[in-house]
Amino acid sequence: MANRCIIYQQNGDPTQVLSAITFPKLPSPSPNTVNLKFLLAPLNPADVNTIEGDEPVFVGGNEGLGQVVEVGDGVEGLEKGDWVVMDKPQLGTWSTSRNVSFKDVIRLPSAGLTEAHGATMTVNPTTAYNMLSNFANLHQGDWVIQNGANSAVGQLVVQIAKERGLNTINFVRSRDDMEPLVKHLEGLGATKVLTYDDLEDRSLRGKIKEWTGGKDIRLALNCVGGEPTTAMAKLLGQDSHLVSYGAMSKKPLSLPTSLHIFKNLTSHGFWQTNWTKTHSRAEKEELIVKLAEMMKEKKIKAPEHTIETDEEATTKIRDVFAKVAQGKFGKKVLLKLEDVSA
Amino acid sequence: MANRCIIYQQNGDPTQVLSAITFPKLPSPSPNTVNLKFLLAPLNPADVNTIEGDEPVFVGGNEGLGQVVEVGDGVEGLEKGDWVVMDKPQLGTWSTSRNVSFKDVIRLPSAGLTEAHGATMTVNPTTAYNMLSNFANLHQGDWVIQNGANSAVGQLVVQIAKERGLNTINFVRSRDDMEPLVKHLEGLGATKVLTYDDLEDRSLRGKIKEWTGGKDIRLALNCVGGEPTTAMAKLLGQDSHLVSYGAMSKKPLSLPTSLHIFKNLTSHGFWQTNWTKTHSRAEKEELIVKLAEMMKEKKIKAPEHTIETDEEATTKIRDVFAKVAQGKFGKKVLLKLEDVSA
Repeated sequence: MANRCIIYQQNGDPTQVLSAITFPKLPSPSPNTVNLKFLLAPLNPADVNTIEGDEPVFVGGNEGLGQVVEVGDGVEGLEKGDWVVMDKPQLGTWSTSRNVSFKDVIRLPSAGLTEAHGATMTVNPTTAYNMLSNFANLHQGDWVIQNGANSAVGQLVVQIAKERGLNTINFVRSRDDMEPLVKHLEGLGATKVLTYDDLEDRSLRGKIKEWTGGKDIRLALNCVGGEPTTAMAKLLGQDSHLVSYGAMSKKPLSLPTSLHIFKNLTSHGFWQTNWTKTHSRAEKEELIVKLAEMMKEKKIKAPEHTIETDEEATTKIRDVFAKVAQGKFGKKVLLKLEDVSA
Repeated sequence: MANRCIIYQQNGDPTQVLSAITFPKLPSPSPNTVNLKFLLAPLNPADVNTIEGDEPVFVGGNEGLGQVVEVGDGVEGLEKGDWVVMDKPQLGTWSTSRNVSFKDVIRLPSAGLTEAHGATMTVNPTTAYNMLSNFANLHQGDWVIQNGANSAVGQLVVQIAKERGLNTINFVRSRDDMEPLVKHLEGLGATKVLTYDDLEDRSLRGKIKEWTGGKDIRLALNCVGGEPTTAMAKLLGQDSHLVSYGAMSKKPLSLPTSLHIFKNLTSHGFWQTNWTKTHSRAEKEELIVKLAEMMKEKKIKAPEHTIETDEEATTKIRDVFAKVAQGKFGKKVLLKLEDVSA
C-alpha cells in the first residue's frame, strides 16, 4: 500500500496550487516519533491564508485527528491505538500517514468522542473557549455579544457560553426565512438572536437593557468587521473588551476613539495559533481535556459536516476554497484520505 | 474682600455659558476641610467636554494649584502655606478660593517648583507618564512612536521618555518652516521628528528599521485618529499596544483586523480621570512625587503659557475654547483670579 497526501509546491491560490500525490509507505518511526494514521482532517478557512502566504509548507492541513499506529523508541505517554490532535501548526494533516515527534501531539482522552469531534478540536473550540475565558473575567450570569454567530466558532461560543452559564446576544445576517436559523442557534443555547439590521433599530438599546436587567455587557466577539462591528461595540458597557478573530466583511475595524478613552474599551485580536505558541504544554492539555469532556457530555456538538474521501479530494478542496474566497461557508468539509495500492 | 469664580449654570457651548461671578468670602473651613487659595488654574481642551456634557457642575475648572490658607479640625498632613493639587475631578479650580476635604487634595513636595509646574501637574504629565509606563512594559533603549507630538501631552511624552532612556519617533503636521519645531522637540529630547506626510513615504519603514536596529516598536500613542493613525499602527511590531488619548482629527480609529489577529496588536484608551478614580491614594501620591522631582530637576519643563488675570478672564476663556473648537491649540492659558473688594 502507498500513502496519499494533498500538497502544494508553491504558495498561491488554493484552487490552483493544490494537488494529490501518492508516496511510498513510511518507514517505522525513528526514536521519539510516532507513526500516525490520519482519520479525518478538516478544511478551515484559515488554510487559505497559509497556502497563499509566504511560508513554504509542502503537505497541507493544519488540523486533524490522528491515530497512533506505531511508536518509536523513547516515546512517552502514547500507545498504539491512541487518538491524538496536533500541538503544532501546519504538521500536514491532509495525508493518510505521517511520522511526527511525540512532543508535537496531544493524546485525547479515550472513549465517547466521535471522529468529527476529534478532527475539529484544536482550532475552533479552543478559539471559542479562550475568547470567552481570557479577556473580560466573566462570571455566571454575565452577557456576551457576538457577530457571525452562525460561523463555526460562533456556534461554539454559543454552546460553551451556555455551559458556563453566560448569556449570549447573537448577530447574524438577515435572510428571508429567519426561523430555522434562530431555532438552530437557540437549540444550541443562544439566549437571543438578532440580525445586523437590528443594529440600526433605535429601540435596540432599550430592549437589550431589559434583557440584561441593566447589567453592562463587557465582552464582544467579532469575526465580521466594518460598520456592524462599530455598532455592536457601541452596545458595550464600561471597561469592556472587543476581541476580533476574523474579518469576513474584509472591512477594517473602525471605532470612535471616545469608546477607548471614556468607556475604557480595549480592542484585542485572538489567534489560536499564537495562543498555542505562547502557552505551556500543560495548559494546552488541560484545555483539550476540558473540551473533550464537554464533547463527551454532548455540551458541544460536532460541526455539521460532510466527509470527502480520497477519490475526489482535490476537486472538492478547490470547490471549498473557491467558496471561502467568496465569503461563503457551507458545512465543514472533513477529508478522509485512504491509502492506495502502489 | 469677596471671592471670584467662573461658573456655568447650564451645560453647553463654553463660549456661551461661562460667566464670572463674585461671591462672599468663604467661612472658616469646617472639620476635615481646608481653605484653599487657587494660585493658578489652566484651561484644558477636555474642559470643553465637561462644560458641554451632561453633568451639572457649577464652578468650572478641573486642574489647578491651590495653597492652603486655613486648616479645619481633624485635617491630617496639611499645613498653612502648603501647595496642593486636586485628587478629584471637577473640584472647581477656576475660583479664587474654595473649601475642600483634605482627602481630595495631594500635597506637593515643597520647593523648586514653579506655580506653572504645579498648576499643570495632574492632567498632562500624569497622562504622559502613565501611558509610557502602564502598557507595553518598556525598558531602557526601547522605542515609542507618537502622533500629535507637539501637543501638551506629546511634549511631555518626549521629555519623560528621554528621562527614562526611551527613544521616540514623533509625528507632527508638516508646515512651511519645519526647522523651529524640529529644533524645539529635539531640544526636549525627541530622538526623531517626522511629519504625517512621511507616513506615505515608502522608504519610511526601512529608515525606521535602520534607526531602531530592527528592534520592534511596541508602543504607539495617539491623539489624532483617522488615516495617519492607521499608518502609524502599521509601523508597530509583534505584541504591541496602541494607546489613544485624544482624537484631534475627529475621525475614528480604523485598524485592519489583521493587525489585531496576526500581530497581536491591542488598542486601548487612556483617560487620566479614570486612572485617578481606579487607583489608590498611595499610587497617586507616588506619581505626583516622581513628576515633581523631574520638574525640580528641570527634566520636565512647564508648558509654554500665558497667565490671564481676572479682569478679562471670561473673554479670554471664551476665545480659548473657540479656538479649541476649531482644533487649534496655542500656548496653555493659566487663569489667575483675584479677590475683589465687595
